[in-house]
Formats: sequence, structure tokens, C-alpha cells
Amino acid sequence: MQGFPPNPEKRVMLPDSNFFSFPNLRWSVCHMRELLPTASIERAVAGYSPLTYSLVEGIDEVAFTPMHAKTAMSWQESLAENYTDGLLILHQGHIVYESYRGCLDAHTKHAAMSMTKSVTGLIAEILIAQGKLDEFAIVKDIVPELTRSAFGDATVRQVMDMTTSLAYSENYADPKADIWQYSAAANPLPKPLDYTGPVGYFEYLQTVKKAGVHGDAFGYKTVNTDALGWILSRVTGKKFNVLVSELLWQPLGMEMSADITVDGLGIPFAGGGLSATLRDLGRLGLAIANDGTVNGVQVIPKRAIDSIRLGGSKAAFAKAGYKTMPNGSYRSMWWHFHNEHGAFAARGVHGQTIYIDPTAKMIIVRFASHPVASNSVIDPTSLPAYEAIARFLMNRE
Amino acid sequence: MQGFPPNPEKRVMLPDSNFFSFPNLRWSVCHMRELLPTASIERAVAGYSPLTYSLVEGIDEVAFTPMHAKTAMSWQESLAENYTDGLLILHQGHIVYESYRGCLDAHTKHAAMSMTKSVTGLIAEILIAQGKLDEFAIVKDIVPELTRSAFGDATVRQVMDMTTSLAYSENYADPKADIWQYSAAANPLPKPLDYTGPVGYFEYLQTVKKAGVHGDAFGYKTVNTDALGWILSRVTGKKFNVLVSELLWQPLGMEMSADITVDGLGIPFAGGGLSATLRDLGRLGLAIANDGTVNGVQVIPKRAIDSIRLGGSKAAFAKAGYKTMPNGSYRSMWWHFHNEHGAFAARGVHGQTIYIDPTAKMIIVRFASHPVASNSVIDPTSLPAYEAIARFLMNRE
Repeated sequence: MQGFPPNPEKRVMLPDSNFFSFPNLRWSVCHMRELLPTASIERAVAGYSPLTYSLVEGIDEVAFTPMHAKTAMSWQESLAENYTDGLLILHQGHIVYESYRGCLDAHTKHAAMSMTKSVTGLIAEILIAQGKLDEFAIVKDIVPELTRSAFGDATVRQVMDMTTSLAYSENYADPKADIWQYSAAANPLPKPLDYTGPVGYFEYLQTVKKAGVHGDAFGYKTVNTDALGWILSRVTGKKFNVLVSELLWQPLGMEMSADITVDGLGIPFAGGGLSATLRDLGRLGLAIANDGTVNGVQVIPKRAIDSIRLGGSKAAFAKAGYKTMPNGSYRSMWWHFHNEHGAFAARGVHGQTIYIDPTAKMIIVRFASHPVASNSVIDPTSLPAYEAIARFLMNRE
Repeated sequence: MQGFPPNPEKRVMLPDSNFFSFPNLRWSVCHMRELLPTASIERAVAGYSPLTYSLVEGIDEVAFTPMHAKTAMSWQESLAENYTDGLLILHQGHIVYESYRGCLDAHTKHAAMSMTKSVTGLIAEILIAQGKLDEFAIVKDIVPELTRSAFGDATVRQVMDMTTSLAYSENYADPKADIWQYSAAANPLPKPLDYTGPVGYFEYLQTVKKAGVHGDAFGYKTVNTDALGWILSRVTGKKFNVLVSELLWQPLGMEMSADITVDGLGIPFAGGGLSATLRDLGRLGLAIANDGTVNGVQVIPKRAIDSIRLGGSKAAFAKAGYKTMPNGSYRSMWWHFHNEHGAFAARGVHGQTIYIDPTAKMIIVRFASHPVASNSVIDPTSLPAYEAIARFLMNRE
């Protein structure tokens, strides 16, 4: 949207113009709080922790071969190919590459989409490390309201690793998929007069039924993360956005407060509602790569990071059939590639990632607004590119 | 709203539960961004300007006689009487009194309501002082889209002082008042399927018709402020929230970014959408009282402050018949009492104020959620109280 007011053909409005479809998506990803009610994830009032620069020449020219391709592509070409809005590379603690495109600049927040889940998973790991949450506890013992739902007899760990067995479809291509009832419940807009379904994330979660045995297979279903969000709020007595502020945004010295969308009851969307700046997600990736330290100070318990780094069950993950991650796993809402460098990542639809390569001491943060939601379409020109950059940076050492 | 999720009887939702009616109002005023889409008015990333404390004993016991009353009331009693959520008093540059009640604390933002107008008026004065806006210009020459509206042949100054003559009723008690069509246009929620009216603030403004001669009488109508907001964006090419950030929030060293509600097109509500912290509005009042300086540095042009301080036409104001301000005037969206101390104020429904007493070098900022919107009900226990505090503080010098 441009102009005061924007021209009719440039308008992005809720919900009639499909604000989350391409090309509207390219604008909406930078303006979520102007489209939806949000809560604030406050940075520290006192100030922030500056990042240092040590820019490296030649990254744009680094070549790689996309999956299943015969001809090489340059890093720079891959950015356009993937509708990149922002790209940050940190190596050995310094920013070596930073690029803003599309609607983004250094102080604009971009929708993190399902990278939000990895933040939620990290909060859970921190509370476990602090002794405030028991990963082996049964969910109904923490949130009795979930007793009769599929989550009731799952362990917290199963929810964290999405190995619950849920009669729930997140297939966006199916108009009868459960995700649409979930969206209707979560939508902060007033309900239609004839609406009789659940209101808000938490009421919906109580309706999710069990499909089989928990713990057997990975099933990527956002409701797990919102159930986890409820668990985290219940054990701490704090709203999710306040938890993220107190446990991450303030201690990590974030440059800008972040936003998170809320349902009609003001409950933050732990499964996907975060918007943050590129550099602040760089700070998050850097702190994780540095075992929870910021400038040598331990601000996230090392145990929380160690637990995420364990990775999840490859056998459980294999059952989900992710073709671009044939050797992968999922733990604490982080994706593990189990490649030579032990890389793992936060990932969100339309191309969002925080890619952490512990061997190369490299973090790549990407915001994007690819027309296609599924990362399976984006990975072929992304994952090989990240590995090529890691090799390039290591060879310079 | 309390709990995860809040109990049904404690829920405040849009719009079925009337979130801006008492008692829901008492919660909503602190949670506007969780109820409505908003844009951010960013503080400076680098840091903020601390306020200094020199707390004064005995303020709570200061007695005053409310208008038309026979018995005295204490300052402390007046706070409860007026459903005060936050109260800050600055004297000679220091905080001498600070109190948080209701839903408010030091880092929570409260709806400023029509105090937003005074911020808009100040932005206009700054742009005039910078030579970017001509107060004598005719509106249609700046915003041609307004040519056929009532604003078309008004001067910028007439819009700033609300002496335009508009066929527009802002009587909230009348269900047929124009304010309701304005609200329908401005509402960011999707329009009903059978809605054929204007969309957003700017489309609505183009429909406002002239009632008589401009410049003759003061008429308090919010549409003037939104027309001014359009003018400000047009002459600068910047969104209103960006202007407020660049001209006030960053240079004044605000402690926290502020929020402003937007319409369905992302246009900020210059007439009433601001939410800010108590102390940050204290910083604004202090800078104005100090002729535009912060810690001795001129951050607002002195000419802008001087212009506001001139006050408006008492004759034009008298025609509006404000019983609690019999000697008042309105200029650049600031209310002038023309009392012995030359006090002037930003004011908003339900009891919001930034009250500046230049003689006593005193600023009072109040956030409130009084059940009654009109300040005419709240002034009798407020204005005499402010004058009593000013005398108390001056007597201590």
C-alpha cells in the first residue's frame, strides 16, 4: 500500500483482499500489526546490545548447485529466486553480510511465521532448565482443561517435539481441513452471528481429538505449539508475550520490541504470530550458537541450548516424508538437518529461517515472501546455498 | 480480562461486548493494540532521556473546593472520584508525584483519546515553523481530493483551530449523528456486505459538507484533526506515525514507542488513536513548558510553542458554550483556560489530560477511565484541583 490514502488497486485490507496471498503478502509481511490486533514483546527499556560488523566481500558471487539441478546459481541470484526480503549472515560473532529488499529495512519488523514456534520451544527449554516445567509431566496435570482433548495424556516433551497423534489436518489445500476451524476460532474479528464454534486458541485446543498413539511419529501441527503456549502461561502465570520479553527480548538486548498477533481474547499466537527485525533474530541465533551467552554473559541456560541441539527422533521424523530433509529431525520446535555441520533451524512458511551452523560458527537469518508457502519448494535453492556459504566462510579462516 | 484464557464474564472482545463502555473501558484503555490494528510511533533506537525525581510530600492532602460545591475534597479523593489510572506531576523540571492505578503501570501505554489531537496540532505547528506548511494556505491547494468537501475552502489555520463550519454532528447521544457514519468508515473491521459508504478516514472526509462560514465559531469536531493529518502527510510525504516519531518521539527521548490505531487502509487516527505511557506524555508536557527544549537543547522550534501559547479566539470559543471553560479558547488543538496562570491543556474524553501551568512551572498528566465521556462532568473535581496543586507547589518555593 502506498499513498495517503493508497490507490484502490494497491489496497491490502482484511480479509476481503486475501492479505496473506501473493502479491499482497509482499506488503503484509512487514505490516502485520497494522492488519491485526497484537501484543508487544518489549525490549529492555534501558537499551540494547549492539552487533559488530566485519563485512566480507564476495558472498554474492558464491556459487552452489540447487537440489536436483545441473547448473550452478550464485548466492545473489538465489535471493531474488526466493523473494528474499532480508538476509543477515553472522560469522564468528560478527555481521558479515546484511541485505534488505522488498518491504523490509533494518528497523521494520517482518512476520516470522512458524519461526515463532522455535521461540516457543526455546522458552519451554528455558523453563525446564529453570526447574519450572517438567518435560515428562502429563499435559492434563498442568492444564486440566485439556484433559479430554488429544493433548490430555501426552507428555510435555511429546507436545514440544510434535510427536502427539492428533486427528487434525493442517493441509491448507483441503477446504475441509481442521486448520480452517482453528483459524475461525483464532480470528480476532467478530464471529459471524451464526457461529457456534470455539472462541480463541484455547477453546479450540480442547476440541482436538486423538488419532493414535503419542510418541510414534512426527506430525507438524501448529496446535501443538499453542497447547505448549498455554502450558507455559499456566506454569508461570504470565502471558506468552511477557514470557518472551522477560526470558529473551530483554536479556538478549534486542534492538526493537517485537509484535505478536493475538486472538479475540488477547491470547498471543505462540504457533506463528511473531514479527521482529532481521537483526534481532540474528541476536537470537547468535545467542543460541554461543551456548546461550551474549558478550560472554550467560543469559539463556546452557542446558536449554544443549537440549535443543540433541535433535529429535529421525525415525519419527522420517514418517512425515519431508523430501528436502531426508535425514532430518524436529526437537523443541527446531528443525535439525543432521548434515556434516550439525546445522539446525527455525523455519516458517514462505521462506523464513534462522539457520544455525555450529561447525562454521555461522548464522543465516532470512525473511522472505515467496508466493508458495511450503519450504519444500524453497529449500532446493536455499539449503545448498547455506552450505556453500558456510564452506566459503570456513575457507577464509 | 484475566486468566489464560480469561473467564467468559471477564472477556472484552470486539465489538460485541462494547469494549469502550464502562466497565470494559477500564481494561480496554490499557490494551488498545490488542483490540485494534495499530501502527508504531517509534522512540529512538539509541536510548531515551531519563526524567529526574524530586518527590514532594503532602500532595495527597492538598484540599480544594470542586466547582459549585460547598465542601472541600482532598487531591487523593479526587483521583478515585475521577477513575484515575495514572497521575504524574512535574514541577520545575522534576517529577514531584507519580501514581499508577487501575490497569496502568509505568511501562503500560494508555489510550490518550483526543489528546492525540494536541499532538497532531503540535506537529502542524512544527511544520509551519520549519517552513514546510503554510497556515494561511487553502486546504484544496494542498489536498485537491478535499476540494468539494467542507474543508476545501478552509485555511489550514481554521482546520487547526476547529473554526471550520461543518454540517457534521459529533453528538454521540444521537444515533443518527454523522459520527457514526465516520466510525463505520474508519472501522478497520471488514465492512458488512451491504456497506456502500466511504472506506477509511480520507474517503469519509471528502463527504463532509459545509454548514456556513468558516472562521466564525469553534466547533469541536474530530474530522478537522483527521483532515489536518491528511494535510501533514501530504506536505511531508510521510505517514502520520512516522512524522510523530521523527518530530517528537525520537528527539524528545521518549522511554517507549507509542501506538496509534489505524483504519482499514493503515491510515493512523490523528484525531484520537494514540496510546502512550504516562511518563512519555510528561516528557511532552515538559518540553512544551520549556519552550521546546529538552535538557537545554532545542528539539521543538520555539516558534511552534509560542504559537500554541497565543491561545485562540475567545469569541469563537464562547459560541460553543463550554460551561466548565467559560473563559476558554482553542488553538492548534490545545485547550486554553485563560486563568491567572495562563494554563493550557491537551484533553481527551473519560478524563485524559496534559495540563500545563507555565506560571507554576507545573505539568500534570492524567490518564483516566471515567464512566462518563464528557470532561464537563470531570472538570468540576479536576480543574480546581490542578489550580490548588499549582498554588501548593508555588508556596513551597
